[in-house]
Amino acid sequence: MKFLSLNLLLIFLSFTVYSNDGYKLWLQYYKIDNPQSWQIDKLTQYKVNGSSPTLDIIQGEIQRASQGFFSPKPEGSSKNPKLLISKISDLDQKGFLLDSHKIKELGPDGFAIQELGDKQNDKTTLITANTDIGLLYGTFHLLQMIQRNTPVPKEGVFQSPKIQHRVLNHWDNLDRTVERGYSGFSIWNWHRLPRHIDQQYHDYARANASIGINGTVLTNVNANSLVLTPEYLEKVKALADVFRPYGIKVYLTARFSSPIEIGKLSTADPLNGEVQNWWKDKAKEVYEYIPDFGGFVVKADSEGQPGPHNYGRTQADGANMLADALKPFGGIVMWRAFVYSENTPDDRHKQAYNEFKPLDGLFRDNVIVQVKNGAIDFQPREPFHPMFGAMPKTPLMMEFQITQEYLGHDTHMAFLAPMYEEVLREDTFANGKGSEVSKVIDGSLHSNSITAMAGVANIGTDRNWTGHHFHQANWFAYGRLAWNPNESSEKIADEWLRLTFTNDDDFVTPIRKIMLGSREMVVNYMTPLGLHHIMARSHHYGPGPWVTGGSRADWTSTYYHQASEQGIGFDRTSSGSNALAQYAKELQTNWGNLNSIPEEYLLWFHHVPWDHQLKNGDTLWEGLAKHYQKGVDEARSNIKTWESIKNKIDGERFAHTLSFMKIQAEEAQWWRDACLLYFGQFSKMPLPQGVEQPLHNLEYYINYNPKNVPGI
Amino acid sequence: MKFLSLNLLLIFLSFTVYSNDGYKLWLQYYKIDNPQSWQIDKLTQYKVNGSSPTLDIIQGEIQRASQGFFSPKPEGSSKNPKLLISKISDLDQKGFLLDSHKIKELGPDGFAIQELGDKQNDKTTLITANTDIGLLYGTFHLLQMIQRNTPVPKEGVFQSPKIQHRVLNHWDNLDRTVERGYSGFSIWNWHRLPRHIDQQYHDYARANASIGINGTVLTNVNANSLVLTPEYLEKVKALADVFRPYGIKVYLTARFSSPIEIGKLSTADPLNGEVQNWWKDKAKEVYEYIPDFGGFVVKADSEGQPGPHNYGRTQADGANMLADALKPFGGIVMWRAFVYSENTPDDRHKQAYNEFKPLDGLFRDNVIVQVKNGAIDFQPREPFHPMFGAMPKTPLMMEFQITQEYLGHDTHMAFLAPMYEEVLREDTFANGKGSEVSKVIDGSLHSNSITAMAGVANIGTDRNWTGHHFHQANWFAYGRLAWNPNESSEKIADEWLRLTFTNDDDFVTPIRKIMLGSREMVVNYMTPLGLHHIMARSHHYGPGPWVTGGSRADWTSTYYHQASEQGIGFDRTSSGSNALAQYAKELQTNWGNLNSIPEEYLLWFHHVPWDHQLKNGDTLWEGLAKHYQKGVDEARSNIKTWESIKNKIDGERFAHTLSFMKIQAEEAQWWRDACLLYFGQFSKMPLPQGVEQPLHNLEYYINYNPKNVPGI
Repeated sequence: MKFLSLNLLLIFLSFTVYSNDGYKLWLQYYKIDNPQSWQIDKLTQYKVNGSSPTLDIIQGEIQRASQGFFSPKPEGSSKNPKLLISKISDLDQKGFLLDSHKIKELGPDGFAIQELGDKQNDKTTLITANTDIGLLYGTFHLLQMIQRNTPVPKEGVFQSPKIQHRVLNHWDNLDRTVERGYSGFSIWNWHRLPRHIDQQYHDYARANASIGINGTVLTNVNANSLVLTPEYLEKVKALADVFRPYGIKVYLTARFSSPIEIGKLSTADPLNGEVQNWWKDKAKEVYEYIPDFGGFVVKADSEGQPGPHNYGRTQADGANMLADALKPFGGIVMWRAFVYSENTPDDRHKQAYNEFKPLDGLFRDNVIVQVKNGAIDFQPREPFHPMFGAMPKTPLMMEFQITQEYLGHDTHMAFLAPMYEEVLREDTFANGKGSEVSKVIDGSLHSNSITAMAGVANIGTDRNWTGHHFHQANWFAYGRLAWNPNESSEKIADEWLRLTFTNDDDFVTPIRKIMLGSREMVVNYMTPLGLHHIMARSHHYGPGPWVTGGSRADWTSTYYHQASEQGIGFDRTSSGSNALAQYAKELQTNWGNLNSIPEEYLLWFHHVPWDHQLKNGDTLWEGLAKHYQKGVDEARSNIKTWESIKNKIDGERFAHTLSFMKIQAEEAQWWRDACLLYFGQFSKMPLPQGVEQPLHNLEYYINYNPKNVPGI
Repeated sequence: MKFLSLNLLLIFLSFTVYSNDGYKLWLQYYKIDNPQSWQIDKLTQYKVNGSSPTLDIIQGEIQRASQGFFSPKPEGSSKNPKLLISKISDLDQKGFLLDSHKIKELGPDGFAIQELGDKQNDKTTLITANTDIGLLYGTFHLLQMIQRNTPVPKEGVFQSPKIQHRVLNHWDNLDRTVERGYSGFSIWNWHRLPRHIDQQYHDYARANASIGINGTVLTNVNANSLVLTPEYLEKVKALADVFRPYGIKVYLTARFSSPIEIGKLSTADPLNGEVQNWWKDKAKEVYEYIPDFGGFVVKADSEGQPGPHNYGRTQADGANMLADALKPFGGIVMWRAFVYSENTPDDRHKQAYNEFKPLDGLFRDNVIVQVKNGAIDFQPREPFHPMFGAMPKTPLMMEFQITQEYLGHDTHMAFLAPMYEEVLREDTFANGKGSEVSKVIDGSLHSNSITAMAGVANIGTDRNWTGHHFHQANWFAYGRLAWNPNESSEKIADEWLRLTFTNDDDFVTPIRKIMLGSREMVVNYMTPLGLHHIMARSHHYGPGPWVTGGSRADWTSTYYHQASEQGIGFDRTSSGSNALAQYAKELQTNWGNLNSIPEEYLLWFHHVPWDHQLKNGDTLWEGLAKHYQKGVDEARSNIKTWESIKNKIDGERFAHTLSFMKIQAEEAQWWRDACLLYFGQFSKMPLPQGVEQPLHNLEYYINYNPKNVPGI
């Protein structure tokens, strides 16, 4: 018979009993061990100038944070504030710290954090900004520094976002299903809105504000015009009212055929006066509900969505009609460039460019064209979209996909910041060398007056918002890169880990390493060397290199990999589709040449024989097989790394992540085996040494057909 | 400029900052103010005899509870155990407390809690049982007593369940939609199973075990045969493995046509040898995955589901075939009686009885027939199902609906224990006076060897499991009544409130009152005086007394209310459908007579003129109108009561419940206005004094058509 006292058991059970479901995201505000006076004083002796809903939120946030950071609760002396939060206009001496140039530079969203006073004991930290929202961003920034044990540097912190509109795109349907959503269902409970405002809406807004996101598109780009009816606008207004003090504007997707569906018109022709007036009235109505409504996002003429093509009009005709309707109220149109022919006679890679390039300069000044990072569709790796180098007279915004449609869905760790960073840093050569994509996006290259970035959200009803705990990092990273496209992946990963789990370097160092390598790992076990779009049909879950036939060629894998006994890869050089011609001359030269093209793009642009020699001397087949094996090896070694940090974090998130990592390793192997068996039919070469034999035969993988895959 | 110190702000913000999303249900384990030594000692000095997964759970539960109850953590001296948890067979002196008769009475699930020893300081509390599961039930019971500040009485606590199989029915589909589910989507993430075991599965099992539920039917009665394939059985096994140590068995719904759909047979005829063998093999396969599999639940020949009727066979033929397949493994068949003709030539009320009565005594001994509480379909009030008084040779189980398909969906507070209690206490007169439904169900009336109760779950992905915080009480109440059908609603409400919110009588007393009245309030504003099934078509959300036409009459409101200028109500006496003849003579006399029938059943059994005089002297029309108004008045006054307890509980659940109560009051008015306008067309009488004029006209209500109503 054993007897365990409480204290004995506590030691034994502490990690299993203590639970953390991850709902608090990177705003854990966990206990700081041995907090220093610089950390304590600011949050126990602070002063907020003025009053507004946003300033109330700031005070509440400081409360939450200090309750979490300090336990037991330190006594704050109330003699002198050690933290002053004030708009510049509310400071006693206007701009006593910043010259007018710096103040202007802060803009509407920027903030400054500075230490005032000379003596150690007399120091006050000032958070200042031009607006309440700037103060909110500054407060979140300071709280994060405190959690990370990072004091304010002597020179202070000055930040302002490089992109104006930093928006999430929710592909959420009104029935709460989420297209390509892998973390449950939509958090928007339209049925209960507007009468019930869930706490989660506030928490959503807080989380976004804490990383600088300032807009949200509530509805799927495959749009439903119902959301523009009064019944639903009441609901949208309720959400907008919640989000407003957090600095978040609401946008909606506008279904192009709405004038017919809910307006009872017989046409949606953008050049028809009745149609134009219908949209003008509708915009006016929307602004009566939501005075700071952000604007419309439109997917037109693509994948079954109606659009101006139905009436023989251009994308500019369509976008401009909506822009004219929104203009009087300050709204903008985000017009998606993801347009491709219904019949696809040509390489899909070229179609958006071909459609939009002739329209450059024809859009209204409140239109921005929303371009996916690559020309195909959110692959694990794509070269940047050629439109980024081709539209000097049109503002372009970046659309990243945060949800992992093509990167393993809910259970695969793939920290996406390196992927976003890779695209943003690529050089378009549009104005010669140094014309990086980031400069197109932030408006600096072509002096655009409107700038934006969109991220397709990975948020759902899962208790931790994103399914995989580490997918929270992609939401975080997206926000940070929308704020500053030059931010480094490594810094983002480091900060996210410290805010989300622990400041313990024994945890942060190894886990940061696996995060930073995780996207390349996924590329390796899914689509190495420039392969793309070889996922299973429709749901895109798991490998499907054998997918062929069906209603259109460019929805098949064989179209993209072109594997045969002669070789593999999509020839997009002048001997093939010549999509390469849509890029700058410098890139045509570099990427068009088998000797100079980076190997990660090899099969994207070239059809190459199986015995083609890679840089390391391997044949293409050997290299391909080794890449697949490398991805599997890394997925397996990540499990070991994760197991090694077991006692550094709470048991619930540890176990949850561990089981997902095991799934990922199994599925990496699934990918490797299925792809190598399939491509091996054509290469007819043996697997090189070090590459494991597949578990099953090809037939097994072709017949394996998972049911009810989420996210459709 | 204001300056707020931390301490000042804490007072101000404590209720808004502190958040409780309700996930912990009635297992809050909140801090006990001034805990007494009898509370502390048991949980700091305890001993558990033996070891097993269930005993580990008991230890973990005591840990959680003591961490919550006591802060700061009390030091436990480890000299003598103050709480001993031990199976009877593991006690040093076998049965030293209980005689053999009492031990037998405890059965497999019962438990005893007793204080041993004479002197105050030398007392030890013993929890004992025949099985580990009994100990788990006893531990939960004691922890709940400690939370409620209720010491163990001198005479001890002896409990054993009156019903063997206490199961939840999840109407959850494999795509995670939930039929008639109003609290989000299915908590079963089939896609991630079996490889990811979510913490929520454990928490689900804990919650059920804490109220004695010992079975769960994972899938919708509108069944999908896919769940019987190996791919899904692997997933079911994973859940069964989680639930096993909590004493919870897994059941599945069996689609009758499975032999065709997944077995590739040409028929599912229950008398066909191949079909019988297919089910035998399938049962064997299921038990290879899940050795303690509970059995099959079947909805056949109803609402489009396949069944024995397709082959000209009886319900007994169908049930017995499955029973024979399960028999070797100890499984049972729960065969639903919710069968009604495809063409409905007759009163639906009579059809299940007519179908099953001739089959009484023809079922195998491992079949139990699952009968809804009433003959129509889970209405706010129904007389008990006539089958309960008519099947002496067949075990019958009760099916209650916990999810509020016809009681306002997610946002209407309707504490259902009084409704369950009302049905259980009704007298069938099957063996003369005193033949209550509860005695049919617990097997005592007809000496059945198999007893069961089913509750259609109201559980979903909402962060608080059930949408409305108070709908947790219905899950709780169902469990308590399945354990003991004679439990009182008042006691259940009282205990639930104390466990879930606070022990403060200033909160418990007024809120218990509104809980206990809430179901009658819903009856009043929806279907007073025996009205039924007048909800909107298909989704059943909101009023729809005008619903008529369509594919079948018994899916319309006009079929059930029969309103005309002559009167209102469904004549089920001998001058009408004579469904009344299915009840005992005593009830035929009592309910058949306009003078003796309880008014709450009046329009269920009688068609009555508008000027019929009620007991209080009002005309039927006046009474009807006043009932509707009373429901509205109560919904409004509940808001005031709720607002009065604002500072007694956390801000998050307070606000959440308040907004739902406001919705309920609005919708009560919607019901009143729509129904009185509609019925007023026929009565042609003015609204009596005290009944408010409707907000809109009838056309408005008929045209009001909410979109995307959840739960279909």
